[in-house]
Amino acid sequence: MVGGGSDAFIGAIHRLAAFMDNQIELVCGCFSVDPAISRSSGQSYFLPEDRIYDTYQEMIAHEATLPEGDRMDFVTIVTPNRWHFDPAMLALAHGFHVVVDKPMTFSLEEAKLLQQKVTETGLLLALTHTYTGYPAVKEAKERIANGELGKLRRLYVEYNQGWLAKRIELEGGNNAGWRTDPKRSGKAGCVGDIGTHAWHLSEYITGLKVEELSADLNAFVPGRPIDDDGCAFLRYESGVKGVLTSSQIAAGEENSLKIRVYGEKGGFEWNQQEPNTLWAKWTDRPTEMLRVGNSYMGAAAQWNSRTPGGHPEGYIEAFANIYRNFALTLRALKNNETPKPEWLDFPRVEDGVRGLQFIETMVASGYDNDQKWHKWIE
Amino acid sequence: MVGGGSDAFIGAIHRLAAFMDNQIELVCGCFSVDPAISRSSGQSYFLPEDRIYDTYQEMIAHEATLPEGDRMDFVTIVTPNRWHFDPAMLALAHGFHVVVDKPMTFSLEEAKLLQQKVTETGLLLALTHTYTGYPAVKEAKERIANGELGKLRRLYVEYNQGWLAKRIELEGGNNAGWRTDPKRSGKAGCVGDIGTHAWHLSEYITGLKVEELSADLNAFVPGRPIDDDGCAFLRYESGVKGVLTSSQIAAGEENSLKIRVYGEKGGFEWNQQEPNTLWAKWTDRPTEMLRVGNSYMGAAAQWNSRTPGGHPEGYIEAFANIYRNFALTLRALKNNETPKPEWLDFPRVEDGVRGLQFIETMVASGYDNDQKWHKWIE
Amino acid sequence: MVGGGSDAFIGAIHRLAAFMDNQIELVCGCFSVDPAISRSSGQSYFLPEDRIYDTYQEMIAHEATLPEGDRMDFVTIVTPNRWHFDPAMLALAHGFHVVVDKPMTFSLEEAKLLQQKVTETGLLLALTHTYTGYPAVKEAKERIANGELGKLRRLYVEYNQGWLAKRIELEGGNNAGWRTDPKRSGKAGCVGDIGTHAWHLSEYITGLKVEELSADLNAFVPGRPIDDDGCAFLRYESGVKGVLTSSQIAAGEENSLKIRVYGEKGGFEWNQQEPNTLWAKWTDRPTEMLRVGNSYMGAAAQWNSRTPGGHPEGYIEAFANIYRNFALTLRALKNNETPKPEWLDFPRVEDGVRGLQFIETMVASGYDNDQKWHKWIE
Amino acid sequence: MVGGGSDAFIGAIHRLAAFMDNQIELVCGCFSVDPAISRSSGQSYFLPEDRIYDTYQEMIAHEATLPEGDRMDFVTIVTPNRWHFDPAMLALAHGFHVVVDKPMTFSLEEAKLLQQKVTETGLLLALTHTYTGYPAVKEAKERIANGELGKLRRLYVEYNQGWLAKRIELEGGNNAGWRTDPKRSGKAGCVGDIGTHAWHLSEYITGLKVEELSADLNAFVPGRPIDDDGCAFLRYESGVKGVLTSSQIAAGEENSLKIRVYGEKGGFEWNQQEPNTLWAKWTDRPTEMLRVGNSYMGAAAQWNSRTPGGHPEGYIEAFANIYRNFALTLRALKNNETPKPEWLDFPRVEDGVRGLQFIETMVASGYDNDQKWHKWIE
Repeated sequence: MVGGGSDAFIGAIHRLAAFMDNQIELVCGCFSVDPAISRSSGQSYFLPEDRIYDTYQEMIAHEATLPEGDRMDFVTIVTPNRWHFDPAMLALAHGFHVVVDKPMTFSLEEAKLLQQKVTETGLLLALTHTYTGYPAVKEAKERIANGELGKLRRLYVEYNQGWLAKRIELEGGNNAGWRTDPKRSGKAGCVGDIGTHAWHLSEYITGLKVEELSADLNAFVPGRPIDDDGCAFLRYESGVKGVLTSSQIAAGEENSLKIRVYGEKGGFEWNQQEPNTLWAKWTDRPTEMLRVGNSYMGAAAQWNSRTPGGHPEGYIEAFANIYRNFALTLRALKNNETPKPEWLDFPRVEDGVRGLQFIETMVASGYDNDQKWHKWIE
Repeated sequence: MVGGGSDAFIGAIHRLAAFMDNQIELVCGCFSVDPAISRSSGQSYFLPEDRIYDTYQEMIAHEATLPEGDRMDFVTIVTPNRWHFDPAMLALAHGFHVVVDKPMTFSLEEAKLLQQKVTETGLLLALTHTYTGYPAVKEAKERIANGELGKLRRLYVEYNQGWLAKRIELEGGNNAGWRTDPKRSGKAGCVGDIGTHAWHLSEYITGLKVEELSADLNAFVPGRPIDDDGCAFLRYESGVKGVLTSSQIAAGEENSLKIRVYGEKGGFEWNQQEPNTLWAKWTDRPTEMLRVGNSYMGAAAQWNSRTPGGHPEGYIEAFANIYRNFALTLRALKNNETPKPEWLDFPRVEDGVRGLQFIETMVASGYDNDQKWHKWIE
Repeated sequence: MVGGGSDAFIGAIHRLAAFMDNQIELVCGCFSVDPAISRSSGQSYFLPEDRIYDTYQEMIAHEATLPEGDRMDFVTIVTPNRWHFDPAMLALAHGFHVVVDKPMTFSLEEAKLLQQKVTETGLLLALTHTYTGYPAVKEAKERIANGELGKLRRLYVEYNQGWLAKRIELEGGNNAGWRTDPKRSGKAGCVGDIGTHAWHLSEYITGLKVEELSADLNAFVPGRPIDDDGCAFLRYESGVKGVLTSSQIAAGEENSLKIRVYGEKGGFEWNQQEPNTLWAKWTDRPTEMLRVGNSYMGAAAQWNSRTPGGHPEGYIEAFANIYRNFALTLRALKNNETPKPEWLDFPRVEDGVRGLQFIETMVASGYDNDQKWHKWIE
Repeated sequence: MVGGGSDAFIGAIHRLAAFMDNQIELVCGCFSVDPAISRSSGQSYFLPEDRIYDTYQEMIAHEATLPEGDRMDFVTIVTPNRWHFDPAMLALAHGFHVVVDKPMTFSLEEAKLLQQKVTETGLLLALTHTYTGYPAVKEAKERIANGELGKLRRLYVEYNQGWLAKRIELEGGNNAGWRTDPKRSGKAGCVGDIGTHAWHLSEYITGLKVEELSADLNAFVPGRPIDDDGCAFLRYESGVKGVLTSSQIAAGEENSLKIRVYGEKGGFEWNQQEPNTLWAKWTDRPTEMLRVGNSYMGAAAQWNSRTPGGHPEGYIEAFANIYRNFALTLRALKNNETPKPEWLDFPRVEDGVRGLQFIETMVASGYDNDQKWHKWIE
């Protein structure tokens, strides 16, 4: 693991998610740019001293010298966006698979270089777009692919948080610092941090790609040098239209990611804060409440849940689905077996490249008052 | 009453709403362009034969000859949009106050002429933008005016229906016919029918006016000659930004009008389908569920509700609030008394003019691919 | 109308409900034991001076002398329980139909005398058990009668309010006074006021009668001389078992009446505070959200609602359903026509007698520690 | 681990819960009475061959001979109720701590013997009453203890499932077999399986003990030899009254555990199927929605959750809280350190004894028609 010291948020989530299914073991790490924090963090994770490293370069180089079976199988990168690319490239170069947080890189240029490296090496890169790990999301995807809604027409996807309603990045000691700093976060703030999740969810569920968009990005909090809010009209393939809204100044909201997709025959609605329910609405019969863990759910939802209906699964389980599928795929490859199709269901380098394209297109369109529609930047 | 025969939807609602509070009596009407339907409708409403008219012209002319006390006090117009203007002008010309459904007229030009006539005559014109009649909406307005949310920043307003997901206007025998026919509905379909409600609600709650917008209008159902879906980015006074979405092809939705408004300190959320709850979200304390009928609600909500908390009031009561406030104002004027301020809280001709401006601006922007932002058409 | 002066709660509801559908007109009344209040109330309801009476005896006697067509058709009694019986008997004796609030009388003995009088006179008596007027409740009843749930087994019905959590009856100026006074309310407080509604709803929906019960009544607030909380195990016909809970000291609750009924194949759930939804749960397929106003709803729900789906109807509309059905039945009888079956769907004297039997059985069982099950008192 | 082969439900949950926080490692097990299943299960859990045992006796005996550091630290018992006692006694006798599923034993007699053994050995016994592991439940407990609701009066606790609405135990291949068989389940079915959870939750949240109850137990499904439904009136210390309902034939319900507690000043409501929200209702101000992961939550909720607000935690995390607290306590004891008070918050042998007392009292009262109230069996 690179990053994820005991003072970090997302690293802890990665560990919870990775451990849950007993498929993955933490064997080594460089948990901070500060060697002392790295060391104390590693100790608290019960690592032996010689597998706690001061730099990721040292870690990757040294692990590569260990005998197979002893050395790590893959590297998880949970650093701020600015420092995704370098360790990922180095890990791939040394033959290690990679799990990396989103957005995959700092820039589209880096993303393409990384994609090229993944292709060259034939190694796996998994991207933790957590929200597509939820079983109810997979149910929606499966049913839409089966044509249950008929031809799709309209979608709304929204992601609202309120934690940046004040300029808390000035206070220090929180995750707002690097996320609102263009030097560490990239061209976009809100749009890169959560807008990408909303966009990714919409393409995952519908199986359709955005072709054009018209965006409006805002920095509502005075003095903030990067967007804290962004919305867009989206044109997908096949004439489907979407509205995407994302905001980190929606004061009082927690982590409100919702999607609604409508076709000729009905619509689906899913809300991340009550993730075990998928609402199915119909033109000619009552709305149905599809609940994870019931026998009427499809194969993808069944595979990606662990408990019977009414035993709520949450964010960590969704995260764990990415890790479990990745780990099973990786184990199969190590054993020269063919991974089952359901194991291959995790976001990867292509999603990462499109994610950076989304960010760049949003930024290009979001501050431009002349032109209404902007082509997707390839 | 003009229109509202026994085969019509909204006329029945007007009668329920007008009767409920025992302030208004139906004394005469011309309920259909078909005299036979007008007559049978009038009989079923218990009207004497000599107060059921074949044409609205006849009705207005004859009623004006009756002695005060006997003759009608005001005219309610519930015909398709195309036929709002003429009876309204005629009624005003004969000294009758007017209640008219929204959109107020067929075109902005008509709207301005009507406004001029209202000004000249000094008579009242009430516009039935029903949704601002709900007590929880009034609570939000009052609290925002009191600064509870701090400076406003961002709002989302949406109005989704699914009843036009198929081209049911071809089947006849329903209200879809005139609503999807530009000759009877006006320049806009969905945007005029429900988009105007969403826009009006946003200006009513915030007390702010839209200055500029960027719209995207769609006719998703093949062959439909008018929009059945429309969304817009909105720029309000004081730097507030909004996203408005409205659709009549959101298959499986009933009448889903929702608004969320965020300021520096928190946000309000209201959903018309559960109208007695106003959600108040805060940056620093738990979300509150403000419920109509409780003693902690403000004066406007108290005045506009009839029952204690937990006795749900609905759409007809919201409608009735417009009628009751209008009737009390009218009675006061007749008695040369000053209406109480809370009685004056009903939409009127100015709202009607802005409604047509909204429609025209949406249409001008919604099909225009060159220009991103469009100034509000005055 | 007897009772319902401008200082009373339920009288106002009766008027709103009666007027809404334009079937009923208020023609006379004695609105208070205080003639001055009666007079000012009557004036505010736009009654002529000679139809405002000082006593109900005077009203009934005088109205009976007026020519048919002028005189009132029926009497609505909205006084405290203690004063239901006398005016009801007098009205029937003078040939007037009666609408009376529940519980129908002060004692079971009175209830039986009233039933006898109704039988003798052949007049109508309608009892305003409001909650069975809701269309979603009628939908549940119809579907259960059609066997959709299979054989019934278990039901839960609950009615929780918090307004008596403090001894507010000592403060005066509220409705708590007579409701907590055994001399005006009857043998039971909470159980008579709201427990009866819960019980009535359970028998109405299932079509089954309680045969035996085991109750526990409590007065939680120190000093209160009557129950403010009561629950019971219920044994219905056909082996169905129920649990009824009711409380007026459930601090923070508004008017939370809920019922859940389970059969072999599924269950229904209804909540009065969101009354337009009936939840249908199934053993073998997803939970459905049945919504009032949609075309898939049955005949009874359709007849008893006024608006399309998504236009919420509430408490006043439920109340109005009782008045409308009663008025249509009464008008048919006056015209020597046969009332349509759906018009006959309102609670009447038999429900009133069983309501008093329920109260007496609950009181007999609720304070008795020796015997577990108590037979229904006939 | 004893039990929990790859064909079992609750064993899998125990492993997920135990692994998540990286505090616990599975080192050995006897996973089935069938040695072949035990072996294949152990292999799939990545255990070395010599730590997979054919019998629990062999496991306990052999592990006890391994050097400290190598041998297991504690035994988790996830067998049917009938086989909790013997392995637990044996484990304690060999110096191993124990985690056991509820109900703790087959009979009250066994429970008391086990309690005696725990006392004698000074070892830890943790009981997995999962639902008290939820952070929102702990928040309610903390606030009630702080007096936020004032003196408590009334509580409702309910636990409804529908999976036994048919006699699926005859089909085999499911968990219904042993649960509906008095020889393996104990004196009670539904009441032991889920009624105990409801009862335990009520005592945990209120800090009050049941002193007396009046129960009604039912076997609704024809031919079933044990209760599949049970309810009770409960008398707690300090005059608090409760109603407990539990059913496994509530057709269409998943796992609906809810509790409502009312005091003088307000009430709390919690629903296991949406576990991250605690509703706080007040007599004098709006209902609040307390959400796990926010800074306004108390110390216990903070300690027992892992993510910020809006990142839902579920059943496995609640389960994991028990394991984590137990593991931290155990580690402290091994290191001769004092466990932090918050680590000691997990159910233990005393809860297990009271659980069996609850079952015995429910059964004694539930089929007894003579006597209304039954004293708690000690």
